[in-house]
Amino acid sequence: MLERTSTRIADRIERGDVFEPHCPSRGNLKHVTSSWGVLTLIALRPGTLRFSELRRRVNGVSERMLAQTLQQLEGDGIVLRKSYPVVPPHVEYTLTELGQEAASHVEALADWIEDRLTDLLERRSGAGGDAPPDAKAAAAS
Amino acid sequence: MLERTSTRIADRIERGDVFEPHCPSRGNLKHVTSSWGVLTLIALRPGTLRFSELRRRVNGVSERMLAQTLQQLEGDGIVLRKSYPVVPPHVEYTLTELGQEAASHVEALADWIEDRLTDLLERRSGAGGDAPPDAKAAAAS
Repeated sequence: MLERTSTRIADRIERGDVFEPHCPSRGNLKHVTSSWGVLTLIALRPGTLRFSELRRRVNGVSERMLAQTLQQLEGDGIVLRKSYPVVPPHVEYTLTELGQEAASHVEALADWIEDRLTDLLERRSGAGGDAPPDAKAAAAS
Repeated sequence: MLERTSTRIADRIERGDVFEPHCPSRGNLKHVTSSWGVLTLIALRPGTLRFSELRRRVNGVSERMLAQTLQQLEGDGIVLRKSYPVVPPHVEYTLTELGQEAASHVEALADWIEDRLTDLLERRSGAGGDAPPDAKAAAAS
């Protein structure tokens, strides 16, 4: 897959392969599927948010973790950070075109989980396949 | 969202909300988006695999991490584990119907990343938005 004729990574790769341990796609996958990465992407889908607005939306995240998550996504070209030179500081975050594409897939997965949550909970801890569905649900509650 | 009239979790929840810190959907989301969870789901999409086959396919995973990943997915009703009482032990893993649905969303996301990897790499480390695309790619390589 790798040709050594170009020094630009992008020119040397035709398509990623997440099953290849050294393929850089694994890093991108990790960033958009991290616990806070998922919520950040979905929160930014409707439009630009300031750091404090984003932190309220991504309920439960610490300042430090949100900053780290945004830095990773910014580094991957998924999120655009715009800082205004005012006092107090005003920093805004927006999904790039690539980010909107990534977010649509991530949101489809989260939507599915939200839709199917009752089914997932009924099956939780019932993986042995021996107990009937009701007994499994009872064991999970 | 929660009604206290039933003791069964599934009866008390209409729909999950991944933005609620205490919603159990966050656990499900975490399991299917963990680094090894993603690869395990995609690897099992075509059909049943034995533990050793799965470990070869999920390139780079340790025995311990794969076992833990499978246990989580089994507990969520995403993966079905079937063990045959033979020597040497024969254990097979199959996606459940719910698992196939989850895997289709996870694979769509991974496919997108693999397809768009060159774009993602060109933008990597170019998040400042000041440098032209070529300079960003050069800085990333």
